[in-house]
Amino acid sequence: MHKFATLDDGSPDGALAAVCGDLSNCRTYNGMTLQAMLDGRNCPSNGRDTPFSRNAALPPLPRAHQFLDASAYVNHVHLVRMARGADMPGSFWTDPLMYQGASDRFLRSCDPIFGKFEWGIDFEAEIAIITDHVPQGTAPEEAGESIRLVMLLNDISLRNLIPAELSKGFGFVQSKPHSACSPVAVAPDGLSGWDGGKLHGILNVDLNGEPFGRADAGIDMTFDFPKLIAHAAKTRSLCAGTIIGSGTVSNRDSKGGPGKPISQGGKGYSCIAEQRMVETISTGSAHTSFLRHGDTVRIWMEDDNGHSIFGDITQKVEALT
Amino acid sequence: MHKFATLDDGSPDGALAAVCGDLSNCRTYNGMTLQAMLDGRNCPSNGRDTPFSRNAALPPLPRAHQFLDASAYVNHVHLVRMARGADMPGSFWTDPLMYQGASDRFLRSCDPIFGKFEWGIDFEAEIAIITDHVPQGTAPEEAGESIRLVMLLNDISLRNLIPAELSKGFGFVQSKPHSACSPVAVAPDGLSGWDGGKLHGILNVDLNGEPFGRADAGIDMTFDFPKLIAHAAKTRSLCAGTIIGSGTVSNRDSKGGPGKPISQGGKGYSCIAEQRMVETISTGSAHTSFLRHGDTVRIWMEDDNGHSIFGDITQKVEALT
Repeated sequence: MHKFATLDDGSPDGALAAVCGDLSNCRTYNGMTLQAMLDGRNCPSNGRDTPFSRNAALPPLPRAHQFLDASAYVNHVHLVRMARGADMPGSFWTDPLMYQGASDRFLRSCDPIFGKFEWGIDFEAEIAIITDHVPQGTAPEEAGESIRLVMLLNDISLRNLIPAELSKGFGFVQSKPHSACSPVAVAPDGLSGWDGGKLHGILNVDLNGEPFGRADAGIDMTFDFPKLIAHAAKTRSLCAGTIIGSGTVSNRDSKGGPGKPISQGGKGYSCIAEQRMVETISTGSAHTSFLRHGDTVRIWMEDDNGHSIFGDITQKVEALT
Repeated sequence: MHKFATLDDGSPDGALAAVCGDLSNCRTYNGMTLQAMLDGRNCPSNGRDTPFSRNAALPPLPRAHQFLDASAYVNHVHLVRMARGADMPGSFWTDPLMYQGASDRFLRSCDPIFGKFEWGIDFEAEIAIITDHVPQGTAPEEAGESIRLVMLLNDISLRNLIPAELSKGFGFVQSKPHSACSPVAVAPDGLSGWDGGKLHGILNVDLNGEPFGRADAGIDMTFDFPKLIAHAAKTRSLCAGTIIGSGTVSNRDSKGGPGKPISQGGKGYSCIAEQRMVETISTGSAHTSFLRHGDTVRIWMEDDNGHSIFGDITQKVEALT
């Protein structure tokens, strides 16, 4: 299994590091970057072995050339609509929702989330892939081959800024600030739970140390990653190093309805908005608050031995100074 | 005056070149890129002098980390709405329309536009800037200082794919493929017509050798570039090398109504859609076709001596193979 990280060497793109399976050690290649590896440059032979520290790692791609974020778990979209009493077009089950996101900077897995409480700060726990170059017109059947790496992503959303922005039709600019990435990205070959199109396994989300989400990322993903890649590449090529996010991982309950909180025996949620929607649907109003200053969200996946596969994302919300 | 281009040295980001005022010669710095210059790396002293050829130039940033495109000439938006009988919210005059665009590749100024006729291929002639790093929360009054370079941009739009995509609210993915850039980007210091916030001067657009647009980019720009930068930076920083487009340059006529075609003594249009809208408003239907295979669009600005300031964008439409 091949795991990669980017260490902070003072340069904007950092230094590539190959990380061992249990994330304890790494080999750093100075002068080499993950983007250069994706571009096809050969890794130099003179790596330097050191212990790996999640807190010393930058995001795998500290700045990427493209981030496309989807809403592949359509149950999530269905809940959003249901909570505000809006019908969901039937096409949403066949035509992926996807937006062009900010890729000029990603936050480290341990970076604070800076924001104003009144913006309605929320997390969205997602699976993301990093692609090779994808030619224009690539079909879903071929698109899986272009998946080079898999990682976790926290797509930070400013819920109270979204309605005004979406009503303009042009997507998200102010309401989706920079996302955070897991410290490690993993090649699909040998990645446990990877079936070629999606990642099976529990996406753990804790809020302030309490279990908040335990959804299975392999369930209810209406559009798998090859379908998302093909959607993005319909009219244009995608550069090597394109990051595609799954959107909030979301499971229905066993009867097909919206999921339940963990405290009620459900799988919980991968964002606060979803819990608020379920509250709105069942009681008429939401009582769970969006993130407050001092709140901490933790997002991770474990292998069969209980090891964190991608390293944890652990972010604390702090006030803008 | 400082003019910059990027030459094709086989690497993804090319080699930085400083271009002389009349675009006849350049000094190329191997191993140096425009992005690295924007990141603050010093230019090496051993440049190599050669003639400058527009056709040998890549876009100034062949792949950028961010492209934000606005609709700063609100007259354009007003026309779009008028043509489909929709009111324009009053907030559109005070709150900029802006979307996150594809930045993973820009087309060269001489690259063909590949696409299907039924997609409704259109050009949009725009002014664009390239920024320095912009801190989160930067005010419009301070944002002008972060403008490092100015260039021209052809924001290629697939008109027939836009309605379905915009109705989903998530902005453009399939309907806005890669944009093309002028071969040269110019520092604002000493750039004739630059007033610190916008660029005054005629943006020439020819379609198949006939004058199509002669709008003045300094007129009717409701939101100048510092305002656009501040809008984008409300909730997040912007990386050095962020490209911000003005949106289609569009002038009203002297009475404040939609502009007239050049054949009727007007300033014409910077995109076909606008001509079609004016036709729809005046006759009930549009008769000008979107781009056909074989059509050529040319976009350029001239200095007082008739020299092309940024080099010309000249693109021919070709069928997808």
